[in-house]
Amino acid sequence: MEVKNGQTNLLWGKEPIIYRVIYGDTDKAGVVYYANYLRLFEIGRTEWMRHMLKVSYKSLEKKGIMFPVVEAYIRYKAPALYDDVIHIHTALQEATKISLTFYYEIKKENKILVTGTTKHASTDTNGKLTKIPKGLIDAFS
Amino acid sequence: MEVKNGQTNLLWGKEPIIYRVIYGDTDKAGVVYYANYLRLFEIGRTEWMRHMLKVSYKSLEKKGIMFPVVEAYIRYKAPALYDDVIHIHTALQEATKISLTFYYEIKKENKILVTGTTKHASTDTNGKLTKIPKGLIDAFS
Amino acid sequence: MEVKNGQTNLLWGKEPIIYRVIYGDTDKAGVVYYANYLRLFEIGRTEWMRHMLKVSYKSLEKKGIMFPVVEAYIRYKAPALYDDVIHIHTALQEATKISLTFYYEIKKENKILVTGTTKHASTDTNGKLTKIPKGLIDAFS
Amino acid sequence: MEVKNGQTNLLWGKEPIIYRVIYGDTDKAGVVYYANYLRLFEIGRTEWMRHMLKVSYKSLEKKGIMFPVVEAYIRYKAPALYDDVIHIHTALQEATKISLTFYYEIKKENKILVTGTTKHASTDTNGKLTKIPKGLIDAFS
Repeated sequence: MEVKNGQTNLLWGKEPIIYRVIYGDTDKAGVVYYANYLRLFEIGRTEWMRHMLKVSYKSLEKKGIMFPVVEAYIRYKAPALYDDVIHIHTALQEATKISLTFYYEIKKENKILVTGTTKHASTDTNGKLTKIPKGLIDAFS
Repeated sequence: MEVKNGQTNLLWGKEPIIYRVIYGDTDKAGVVYYANYLRLFEIGRTEWMRHMLKVSYKSLEKKGIMFPVVEAYIRYKAPALYDDVIHIHTALQEATKISLTFYYEIKKENKILVTGTTKHASTDTNGKLTKIPKGLIDAFS
Repeated sequence: MEVKNGQTNLLWGKEPIIYRVIYGDTDKAGVVYYANYLRLFEIGRTEWMRHMLKVSYKSLEKKGIMFPVVEAYIRYKAPALYDDVIHIHTALQEATKISLTFYYEIKKENKILVTGTTKHASTDTNGKLTKIPKGLIDAFS
Repeated sequence: MEVKNGQTNLLWGKEPIIYRVIYGDTDKAGVVYYANYLRLFEIGRTEWMRHMLKVSYKSLEKKGIMFPVVEAYIRYKAPALYDDVIHIHTALQEATKISLTFYYEIKKENKILVTGTTKHASTDTNGKLTKIPKGLIDAFS
């Protein structure tokens, strides 16, 4: 699931999301607890959808379209610290008829701290795999 | 909502719940993050119900009986640290026809670290206030 | 610790902090988990300090000035939901020589969802109670 | 980082850790929030160390030996639900002179819900890469 160097087919969001690290994100090592980057990834892909697809994940859910996560990968290069202002960069890495994969970079002043990917299946509200609606998949390309 | 000294009408659970503090509970001050004691309180009252009422909160919810929190109070006396083994003591402090109040003590080797209370309304699944079912209120006394 | 009606001596921050609720903030009832409002309170008072005192809590810590929480009170009136845009209003309610108390209101479109207070002791880095430095206490008034 | 079928060199802990899912672990989809499995992995490897190496991670830290995470991978097969009693199975997958990789299975009644791996570098307290002390690496084999 890792992004290869030189990969060019990423559909990046127009602007990163800015986030300031709080005490509640950190652990006793003084850095963001390793699980909490998945919160940041969630913020990244939710805002990616809102800005790139002009649709909120909340409204997709109301239509019975869900994208539960099936895989997540995180690469920790350097820690984010308390009160750091970090940037969440999100890109669509792959869209198939039944899945979406997002790629994320967490940066601090242009230094990459953390990268990762999450792969999501397309399901109905009962968790049954379904094709991504055509209108939406067009928006993805 | 505080418990007065000498208050004697608390209905304590039979045994405390034992919990070991993980990295993910702590913050950069090296202690349990102040919000996470409410997670411990949740564990305390859920197990109190299971052991004292012989009913799980999950099964109450399935019957349409919910106890959403309406107030919480926490008194931080001393911090719980990483890898500490702490004890969650829970008591029913007050039961009315439409509310329950629980009192909690988080201890480490008989030293009280944190105390608190949570007050819960009795509602149906739509959040409408309802009387606590008679069978359940009898169990509370 | 509750704020009385008509209390007029609150020192409000100039602007509320805007926050969008994520999946990770919610619980199976579809609302923000009750502990997570304390994360929002932390955001509120940290930004209050930054904007009103022109000082970051991080820089205070570096000078050996800490304000660990000693009490917290939360009143849950109505829930914040997934994807809600909420406003965190923060005010200084009381400043003594050795403590600070903040008052918070979480609002959604001018409706108050949650209110609360947190009281903080003034300590050095060893957790010993110390007077709030004069320069800082002046800034508080 | 995935475990191949038939891989036989895993050093499993003797017993799984038992954990009951709380409200605070879940999200509005009614399942454990995807980040929180990393909390469970932490519990798994901490207890693996305590029981297999007869050493707590806390005591290693005190000696200046740290194992910060450098990679994490999670495969979500089926969700853990509120009040579920789940089992955290942990194995050492690989130990090199400068890194440890753990493999995890989260099960519910013998059904695998989630699997994953975390890779950890060996560092001193300043985050500098250091060889794992010989006594410890012997314990790992």
